[in-house]
Amino acid sequence: MSKLVTKITDRDTDFAAWYTDVVREADLVAYSNVKGSMIIRPYGYAIWESMQNYLDKEFKKLGHQNVQMPMFIPESLLNIEKEHVKGFAPEVAWVTHGGDTPLEERMCVRPTSEVLFCDHFKNIIKSYRDLPILYNQWCTIVRWEKTTRPFLRSREILWQEGHTMHKTEVEAREETLRMLKVYEDFQRNILALPVLVGRKTEKEKFAGAEETYTIEAMMYDGVALQNGTSHYFGQGFAKSFGITFLDEENKLQTPYQTSWGCTTRMIGGVIMTHSDNHGLVLPPNIAPIKVRFVPIKNTEEIMECIKNITSKLPEGITYDIDDSDKSPGFKFADAEVKGIPIRVEIGLRDLEEKVAPLVRRDTLEKMTVSLDDVAKEIENLLPVIQASMYDKALERRDSMIYETEDYQEFKTLASTKPGFILSPWCGSTECEDKVKDETSLKSRCIKEEIEGKTCPFCGKPAKYMIYFGRQY
Amino acid sequence: MSKLVTKITDRDTDFAAWYTDVVREADLVAYSNVKGSMIIRPYGYAIWESMQNYLDKEFKKLGHQNVQMPMFIPESLLNIEKEHVKGFAPEVAWVTHGGDTPLEERMCVRPTSEVLFCDHFKNIIKSYRDLPILYNQWCTIVRWEKTTRPFLRSREILWQEGHTMHKTEVEAREETLRMLKVYEDFQRNILALPVLVGRKTEKEKFAGAEETYTIEAMMYDGVALQNGTSHYFGQGFAKSFGITFLDEENKLQTPYQTSWGCTTRMIGGVIMTHSDNHGLVLPPNIAPIKVRFVPIKNTEEIMECIKNITSKLPEGITYDIDDSDKSPGFKFADAEVKGIPIRVEIGLRDLEEKVAPLVRRDTLEKMTVSLDDVAKEIENLLPVIQASMYDKALERRDSMIYETEDYQEFKTLASTKPGFILSPWCGSTECEDKVKDETSLKSRCIKEEIEGKTCPFCGKPAKYMIYFGRQY
Repeated sequence: MSKLVTKITDRDTDFAAWYTDVVREADLVAYSNVKGSMIIRPYGYAIWESMQNYLDKEFKKLGHQNVQMPMFIPESLLNIEKEHVKGFAPEVAWVTHGGDTPLEERMCVRPTSEVLFCDHFKNIIKSYRDLPILYNQWCTIVRWEKTTRPFLRSREILWQEGHTMHKTEVEAREETLRMLKVYEDFQRNILALPVLVGRKTEKEKFAGAEETYTIEAMMYDGVALQNGTSHYFGQGFAKSFGITFLDEENKLQTPYQTSWGCTTRMIGGVIMTHSDNHGLVLPPNIAPIKVRFVPIKNTEEIMECIKNITSKLPEGITYDIDDSDKSPGFKFADAEVKGIPIRVEIGLRDLEEKVAPLVRRDTLEKMTVSLDDVAKEIENLLPVIQASMYDKALERRDSMIYETEDYQEFKTLASTKPGFILSPWCGSTECEDKVKDETSLKSRCIKEEIEGKTCPFCGKPAKYMIYFGRQY
Repeated sequence: MSKLVTKITDRDTDFAAWYTDVVREADLVAYSNVKGSMIIRPYGYAIWESMQNYLDKEFKKLGHQNVQMPMFIPESLLNIEKEHVKGFAPEVAWVTHGGDTPLEERMCVRPTSEVLFCDHFKNIIKSYRDLPILYNQWCTIVRWEKTTRPFLRSREILWQEGHTMHKTEVEAREETLRMLKVYEDFQRNILALPVLVGRKTEKEKFAGAEETYTIEAMMYDGVALQNGTSHYFGQGFAKSFGITFLDEENKLQTPYQTSWGCTTRMIGGVIMTHSDNHGLVLPPNIAPIKVRFVPIKNTEEIMECIKNITSKLPEGITYDIDDSDKSPGFKFADAEVKGIPIRVEIGLRDLEEKVAPLVRRDTLEKMTVSLDDVAKEIENLLPVIQASMYDKALERRDSMIYETEDYQEFKTLASTKPGFILSPWCGSTECEDKVKDETSLKSRCIKEEIEGKTCPFCGKPAKYMIYFGRQY
């Protein structure tokens, strides 16, 4: 085993230590002297840029425009929507001085920007002609978390937040679900995450929303990661902020609103779903580098051979060449720890035999391919890896979802089986609270409406099937 | 005159009012209730995205990698480099509380990130193999300005900051000038700004730098806009932070450092150089929309005709169609106020005559073109507009640079002629202070080293030719 690999804790022995080891050894993140804040290193940031590029294009295709709002929120502005301020005030960072001068009114660094957008919408929405407004913002937000973990829980979060305003409830509800679908497709097809999608309960919804829809991924250890949310606000914020428009008949109306967001936390989700004891495993569709060429010796012949292969790779198949003076073993381990989907090794003997070994990162399977076919094989293999990573994650997830209608069995499952439990539920917050108190499981999302079953927590008729689970 | 145009103050009557009118009427920016912070609206943000796309590609071509540092700087970290803290501490925003809890140590929101990068570099630089490090960050910084103006001076600034570390002084100096050249080329070729480039004086250099190089643009009113800087730090920060590396002979060495940055202020520079009483004028190379089609009536035939033209436009020539139900006059004024380089008007009579009027935004010149040639004409015209905007700005700039070796004439020029004064200078801060006190002009940048002339401010031998001017 190489030096690199021995630095990674065994995943089944200590999942938390394994995670931080992978994050560190893959050069994704570094710790800083700023408590609770992480440094995103070039390789980690390149993954975020891949995510941004994909999502930004999707948002724009659907007519969204990027804007930039202020980073600070004056206290009085944060206080306008009552539910919202209750949800966020306890965890904001307060700016009290500019230079040596105390501020007349303290400001927080935005924990999310609903109130800033509403304050702006109030000024720019006059008529039905101004609607819909479809805005998005890429920015950093701050939540003063006490315990932090790279990508999962951090005082500063890189994210995007969509904020839209519509003439009708129907339109706004459609937008809420449309953007949820964008997230779902992205996570399934690009991140290879077999996510569950559904509505949050009243207890778990966003502070100020009428309805919150969520993307819930299950990590290797069975714990849930909320990986994106889309909110239908109704007219709540709009009424608090006095946002109105004149409709086609010149009558004053209140618009309907949505917001939706996802963050660098998705990088944590990718790591905790796909990676292993050798380090990171990246789905090809999000990997900044899709192929790494490892010359066993840095000779001219080998470099020429690599150049010949790369010249045949179609655009979009990004690659690099590890021509460092490290040993082959070190180079292999480095390609593995960084999760590069395909590694191509080329040595002098391979040149003679006109073949090259290709190694799949996801399975560590090694196949020997004729030099003439390497480029073609790479092109064929990348989508195979992508699909196979999804299938593997789906199979594991499904094997860790337990269905029960019995509270005793629910409790046993909760204390012995990592994963999610699918259960009927009456819809009351009391039952949710009881489950939380007695099993420490929280509701993830509502799967569907049902009839004819009983809520195992109170014995009343059940209205929904709902997932419960622990969460990051 | 249309309603839109009458909202813009005459440029020669009140330049400051004209500027804010253009910024507002072109929908670039909105004011917010957060004092000193602006909202960048979709059209303004699209210009910034164009700038980012171009520069980010150039940075990456030269081997730079993007990273993300924390947004906060603990006070003790800011205090490490003495010159640096003196320069920035008076204008930072201080965070003192997280939720209800007072922080053990207050933190400022980064005004620039040198100390954060150095703190990280100390941890990741061990050996000569780790160098050079070529990092860049796109982020928001905060400087607690008392008076603010959109894009020019704002409490929050969107920018990029490059931070690099090198083995040798030669390499670091080369990097400083290489990135200065990237900025210069960008501003000349893309923004059509005829910028002056040179070294800042000791008095005007960045707090903590050994040398600062600057890009100085002259606005329509003769006032300078510092539009980007590149700093050579030598080993100053590295020594303060204890950053060292083992060289090829296993000896401990201190690396050499640079940093360089440019901001949304460049948008202000574009406005104040090229725009006019009809609103914004954008150089084609930075315009988010290069052509606007204005159907005089929204009939099917006209739409079909426009579709036929746009299908022949090469990729990269972005366009939109104003199919609103506004009057043609309103539509023309809107295309003008937004600075769209070419407007194509298509009415029913034009269709019959198989021609279309094309209007150049920079000159407002109207030419009638056969429908078959419209696409080709657009393609030909865009670079002509780009070049002609540069030439016009260059001519105006040159006509507003006055050269003198006589202090009396210098003073007369300073009080009567907007623009820059090129003068010999001995190199002393005393003379710079004197000029500042007596004429309120500050040094812009050193043009070149000279011999054989006299410093008009003290009578000693002059070492440099240097530009003086007022500044934003």
